[in-house]
Amino acid sequence: MTEYDAIIVGAGVIGLSTAYHIKRQNPDSKILVIDKFSAAGQGSTAKSMSAFRCLFSSPINYVLSDSSVDFYNYVQTELGVDLKLFFIGYLWLLGEDDFAEMAPILKKLAAKSLKYREYEAEELAKPLGLNICLRDDEEAELMGLKDVYKGIFIPKAGIVDADCVVKFYEEEFLRLGGEIRYGVKVQDLIVEACKPIGIAGEPFFWQESRISGIKTDSGIIKAKKTILASGAWIPQLLDSVGIECFIKPKKRQVFAVEAKSPLLRHLLFTEGFNPAGCLPFTILPKPRVLIRPFPTERVFWLSYADDFPRAFKLEDDPQPEKGFYQYGIYQVLVKYFPQFQDCRPYSAFAGLYEINTLDGHPVVFEEKDLIAVGGASGSGIMKADAIGRIAAALYDGEDYAILYGDRKFRVSDLSIKERRVEPEKLQI
Amino acid sequence: MTEYDAIIVGAGVIGLSTAYHIKRQNPDSKILVIDKFSAAGQGSTAKSMSAFRCLFSSPINYVLSDSSVDFYNYVQTELGVDLKLFFIGYLWLLGEDDFAEMAPILKKLAAKSLKYREYEAEELAKPLGLNICLRDDEEAELMGLKDVYKGIFIPKAGIVDADCVVKFYEEEFLRLGGEIRYGVKVQDLIVEACKPIGIAGEPFFWQESRISGIKTDSGIIKAKKTILASGAWIPQLLDSVGIECFIKPKKRQVFAVEAKSPLLRHLLFTEGFNPAGCLPFTILPKPRVLIRPFPTERVFWLSYADDFPRAFKLEDDPQPEKGFYQYGIYQVLVKYFPQFQDCRPYSAFAGLYEINTLDGHPVVFEEKDLIAVGGASGSGIMKADAIGRIAAALYDGEDYAILYGDRKFRVSDLSIKERRVEPEKLQI
Repeated sequence: MTEYDAIIVGAGVIGLSTAYHIKRQNPDSKILVIDKFSAAGQGSTAKSMSAFRCLFSSPINYVLSDSSVDFYNYVQTELGVDLKLFFIGYLWLLGEDDFAEMAPILKKLAAKSLKYREYEAEELAKPLGLNICLRDDEEAELMGLKDVYKGIFIPKAGIVDADCVVKFYEEEFLRLGGEIRYGVKVQDLIVEACKPIGIAGEPFFWQESRISGIKTDSGIIKAKKTILASGAWIPQLLDSVGIECFIKPKKRQVFAVEAKSPLLRHLLFTEGFNPAGCLPFTILPKPRVLIRPFPTERVFWLSYADDFPRAFKLEDDPQPEKGFYQYGIYQVLVKYFPQFQDCRPYSAFAGLYEINTLDGHPVVFEEKDLIAVGGASGSGIMKADAIGRIAAALYDGEDYAILYGDRKFRVSDLSIKERRVEPEKLQI
Repeated sequence: MTEYDAIIVGAGVIGLSTAYHIKRQNPDSKILVIDKFSAAGQGSTAKSMSAFRCLFSSPINYVLSDSSVDFYNYVQTELGVDLKLFFIGYLWLLGEDDFAEMAPILKKLAAKSLKYREYEAEELAKPLGLNICLRDDEEAELMGLKDVYKGIFIPKAGIVDADCVVKFYEEEFLRLGGEIRYGVKVQDLIVEACKPIGIAGEPFFWQESRISGIKTDSGIIKAKKTILASGAWIPQLLDSVGIECFIKPKKRQVFAVEAKSPLLRHLLFTEGFNPAGCLPFTILPKPRVLIRPFPTERVFWLSYADDFPRAFKLEDDPQPEKGFYQYGIYQVLVKYFPQFQDCRPYSAFAGLYEINTLDGHPVVFEEKDLIAVGGASGSGIMKADAIGRIAAALYDGEDYAILYGDRKFRVSDLSIKERRVEPEKLQI
């Protein structure tokens, strides 16, 4: 049986970035990617809002995102691969309390290099048709909604097409001679003694043992290193061999609403924020309902990352919940943007976040010849290039990864045992 | 419907200690304990090795254990309740590498207050019939077993009867007017809006919500505070509402071997270590096979806490595995203690550890009117009194708990959000 140098489980954006960077650094190695779907990026990558922001309270999250976005921009502008990347910016609408929390973080980031613009709520009300004052609205009060106090605009942020990013990595990986098998589902990890002695029942606990590959629905695949990049499904496989990764799955839902009415059309194509002449990705005051404009499709994507009591739960085919829009998102949205009055979604989808519950950062670590790469906590696409480079550096046994833009990154910072990250405060 | 002040899920040693200390501090409160079994301590408490040691690298683990053991000793000697507690000590047998790891920890602890005695391997060989030199044994070498280099004897350690401890708390709780219902199984946590508005589908995500009780197989029970003390089953319930507790379940197995032969009888009743005139609880060099003497029953309990690749897995009725003794424990044991040659267990049992994968300490925290108390990581019985006092202090909204012996303990040190503990290095 062929033993691969590395098998990568998961052809989502993290798995393919990892595969590409490993293969790039090891052109002669036999690298195999497998995925249960019939094409790349069909899992949670396809269910993402496909937006990015170079705005995180943690310096590590920032560099992961900033360097990845720089790389995507390079791919698009220098290599001429259209990733449908647009720097439309993020507009973060804040209540007075939200702003009090956010202000010190912004100040700290601005002292480094973050560029942002602060708006008074009044400056935004008219151009956006934004209702900034809810205090006389009894319903809004009952709902706990707050007046808009400020808006923070982040220019280095925007939207990208997840599918284009995935395809880019897939093509490059294949071009380098990498192998991909679709429609192959992992069933188990294989554990073997490092030095087998040939007795049935091995490995015994007094033997050193390792992960030597995977059992799939189309047979066993052996590898020197088994790399799990299967997102929210990573913890299930790791639990089966007693390895902790601090990742939990959580459903996330996106609802698509057409910009049909003139008022909505006007909102979607709000001028003055970005060269594309469209509404930035917009975050409403707490609870943070999210508006992701899709100008080329004349559509808004609406979402909300609910915390308690949304279960940590794996689902093969997570479904959006009608009531989540109707009684949740819509009720909040329409208070701030009355233009959405009576708008119903024409489509919706749901995927799984792979939340790192320790600190909201990815994990990249090796244990017993198994490498786990995941836990991007809802910002996998915007960090995938950096994460792939870090995983490749770990694979190569290097202490530092060089991220795009020649930025040195200490690989063990994202490990479990020597982890050095401060909890992320700007998770949305 | 009655609303309880607190409902405690789980009548194991942690749940009953918590219930007792809450009721003691709040004699007029309506406190209910429920358990799926028909009596107290029938879950993993009954499957424990029921041993204790006041030896942990972490000062927090140390005080939890030390104060609990002092309390049990007080109960037995001052209150006259027989807990079958014997200070038989722990004898930790170490290879040269093990000792190099252990020595600095012992030194640090000795500077505080730890009393221990160091033995040269040679001093132990004869009295114990211990084989300290394996270097000429090819099999042992293949198995990676090391010579015994030193022995460390810890006098403040020993054995106790878990069932007696549980019964003590149960009786005291009932005597104070506490209520217990056995044979009641939790199905779900109930989530309600803090300020209900009377619309179907509540709570919506823009409402503040809380845990208001539990759904059981014999109906709904409402409570101001819902306290989960269900050990390895805690994470399953918390996952269902998206709360992280960093606890994972792992099967642990114990095999009972009779001290039939004169040589084994002699080993069991080794003189010179303790007033009981028996073998201390003994830990073999890595992999650390455990020997728990049961002198009153003329029995040894044998165990091993296997790490990789033992799954994190919940099981309703975990079973011991014959091969785990035969090819695992026995093979190691007999190399050091040839007296066990050909000994087979006459009975065996298995339970679930509730491992805190962050740092090996318990968690005691409140979120949304739910209090979680668990994750004692295999040392629940020896820490149960302190953990119960800390949970009771949290319930009462106090910043500090007073542990037995008037030791002040900062409640938030065991929380998730303000956790202040150093990882435990002496987990076995």
